[in-house]
Amino acid sequence: MLTTMLAGALLIDSDRRKMADEVKLYAVAGSPFVCRAKIALNMKGIKYENFEEDMSNRSAELLKFNPVYKKVPVLVHNGNPISESLLIVEYIDEVWKGVPILPQDPYEKAVARFWAKFIDDKCIPAIFKAFGPDGNEQSDAEAIEQLQILENELKAKGTKFFGGDNINLVDIAADFIAYWLGIIQEAAEKTLVTNDKFPKITVWADDFVNLELVNQVLPPREHLLAFFKKRFGKA
Amino acid sequence: MLTTMLAGALLIDSDRRKMADEVKLYAVAGSPFVCRAKIALNMKGIKYENFEEDMSNRSAELLKFNPVYKKVPVLVHNGNPISESLLIVEYIDEVWKGVPILPQDPYEKAVARFWAKFIDDKCIPAIFKAFGPDGNEQSDAEAIEQLQILENELKAKGTKFFGGDNINLVDIAADFIAYWLGIIQEAAEKTLVTNDKFPKITVWADDFVNLELVNQVLPPREHLLAFFKKRFGKA
Repeated sequence: MLTTMLAGALLIDSDRRKMADEVKLYAVAGSPFVCRAKIALNMKGIKYENFEEDMSNRSAELLKFNPVYKKVPVLVHNGNPISESLLIVEYIDEVWKGVPILPQDPYEKAVARFWAKFIDDKCIPAIFKAFGPDGNEQSDAEAIEQLQILENELKAKGTKFFGGDNINLVDIAADFIAYWLGIIQEAAEKTLVTNDKFPKITVWADDFVNLELVNQVLPPREHLLAFFKKRFGKA
Repeated sequence: MLTTMLAGALLIDSDRRKMADEVKLYAVAGSPFVCRAKIALNMKGIKYENFEEDMSNRSAELLKFNPVYKKVPVLVHNGNPISESLLIVEYIDEVWKGVPILPQDPYEKAVARFWAKFIDDKCIPAIFKAFGPDGNEQSDAEAIEQLQILENELKAKGTKFFGGDNINLVDIAADFIAYWLGIIQEAAEKTLVTNDKFPKITVWADDFVNLELVNQVLPPREHLLAFFKKRFGKA
């Protein structure tokens, strides 16, 4: 009874908030970090105004809202700016009820944060390095080593997503690996993640990208492919 | 009435947990990252067993509990290992009630996480570089630039601590700047943070270090000074 009353109160509060809220996202369509915020907003069914930034000529608003990094995404909720994509996802999960993005249990939550941080601190930098101007056999091996840790984690969990039956913070953090990495591999004509070596990541990436709420916010494949082909001198 | 009932239930639950819990910390006394966890445990009044690690000969437990990074601190709560110092602090704050370490308001919480992450991603690496083997005028200038952003934030807040009247996640994250940095400066005979240029950080550092719950867990100044003098070839 108490639980029902509280749940009711939360729902009403959440609905009221949804209607009254002003939510703005400063974004660049091609960014996996921006897409993290968009997926989280989508999961909660939040309507927002998208402000597309030109990173060679940033808007006065972006510079005002993220003076430290001057980067996207920035979420501005009722005038309050929040930077850093994973912190935006956590904020969205805390403010808006509905589908949970982080586990409720403190230990499971810490584990999810650990893997999201691992993706940001280890996997993505290693992949950037492998496909960067100084990429070589050693940096390829290092990227594969980090991705292998993720592959093992997915195998150990034995679930469809890092979040279990549904996606959570970790899946969202890994959107770059699910979608961008395959396109970059094709553009660079270099494949680190093969189906053979990474069967779990391969299947997970397909499942993740095929989710409607993810698919809706991903930039068109052909745009990204053209962009990266040009960057790798393969256009 | 409802609030009082809930608060009562939480307190009883918390007290029960405190007694039944097995809390272990895998640690190195001289580490500012380990001290973050110790300060948080101290703030909540949690009793724990400290396992001092020899990082040149890590224990089997450390390797088992943190196979990805093999680093300290690792908190093991009733058999569940948590790595990454800031995630440990968040976990402690979520599991044990009492003095809050993060703000309750989601926006204030996001802001605190932003600054803690800024300290880890920008300030500490810049300071490490400035005092590292390749430190030069440019890396000194970069470290000063990052610290200036922290100085400005403290000035803008106008409060004793980053957390306001009391310390929060940001103050804890900055323990390296409050205590270790001054000792490193003395050992290296190079001063980046002067009282003149960083009046707010200087006063804040003193206030932070003088808190009993912080002071209790800091490694002895003379040990650190000797360690860093040796490292800088000034012994």
